Amino acid sequence: MRYQPSDIAGGPTIKSRVTTHGGRGMTLEQEINESNQYYLAHDIAVIHKKPTPIQIVKVDYPKRSAAVIREAYFRQASTTDYNGIYRGRYIDFDAKETKETTRFPLDNFHQHQVDHMRQCLKQGGICFGLIKFVSLDQLYLLKASDLISYWDQQNTANGRKSIPMSVFQQRAISVKYQLNPLIAYLDAVDQLI
Amino acid sequence: MRYQPSDIAGGPTIKSRVTTHGGRGMTLEQEINESNQYYLAHDIAVIHKKPTPIQIVKVDYPKRSAAVIREAYFRQASTTDYNGIYRGRYIDFDAKETKETTRFPLDNFHQHQVDHMRQCLKQGGICFGLIKFVSLDQLYLLKASDLISYWDQQNTANGRKSIPMSVFQQRAISVKYQLNPLIAYLDAVDQLI
Repeated sequence: MRYQPSDIAGGPTIKSRVTTHGGRGMTLEQEINESNQYYLAHDIAVIHKKPTPIQIVKVDYPKRSAAVIREAYFRQASTTDYNGIYRGRYIDFDAKETKETTRFPLDNFHQHQVDHMRQCLKQGGICFGLIKFVSLDQLYLLKASDLISYWDQQNTANGRKSIPMSVFQQRAISVKYQLNPLIAYLDAVDQLI
Repeated sequence: MRYQPSDIAGGPTIKSRVTTHGGRGMTLEQEINESNQYYLAHDIAVIHKKPTPIQIVKVDYPKRSAAVIREAYFRQASTTDYNGIYRGRYIDFDAKETKETTRFPLDNFHQHQVDHMRQCLKQGGICFGLIKFVSLDQLYLLKASDLISYWDQQNTANGRKSIPMSVFQQRAISVKYQLNPLIAYLDAVDQLI
């Protein structure tokens, strides 16, 4: 099964590259989903990935079997991919991977995702990016406010199109891999609350 | 475009019946989406409907045009349809319509939706059902705790399979249609907070 990359024709962001962390061969999305299942099963948080939005055009209804979608298209999401509740707080984030080792290119995010984070922050939500430098095997939680300030300076004179690694080292929270959950990113969220 | 009803082969809940409220010809889902757009545009709340989950099996990649999904199936959602943030609080709900006039049949809800509400309540979320009696043109916000208590008594001796209208009149909050937003259901949420 192949997927269209996100930058072509409005397809979704699919993390098809497989990491070898801990020999588990999981994508960042799978790692987060597994962590969310752990948090849910242990009554720690209720956080889910939203389904990819699809525009359905044609559906067949075979007798005595399930409906089959025969023509549909990927649509642009209007929000981030993950949200939910933790310790009474609204949680909202997106996950991104980069192969870069010295900087995080801002074009990994889309305008609507940044706009959505801005809106959630106004309402008092906890918003961030989970950003993985796959070549370095390093994962960071970057506050949405830091992401937004870099996003907004892009179009200024001498604006940067990326966030330097030094910013992650100084301002982001490092998230370590472990067991149960695999990614304890809510420990990092505790530092934001 | 036709849809599979939710009770066949795990298809999604689709509100295909069109109401004539105010001559607008909108489904309850459309009414809620329009209200959510108003709340979003006015910085009142950030609440979105989640996309219908789809299992994608086959995708075509025509040259120079968008990817086309050629085989896919409706999947059962693991959460309710709507969530977001309002006044710093996590909001989570589902919307249901019934043609009944004296009771609300509990089989409009699915086990996983009730389980999800229970989990969100544990985390301190604001959870409820928006339930429309379409023949009566009446809309109610029913707290998840009331819904759950009726849900749980179904399998007891003499358990009811529906919630009587009198419970809505006594315990639910009536939501009136108006302009801007069409359904001011967050006014009803204010009474829960």
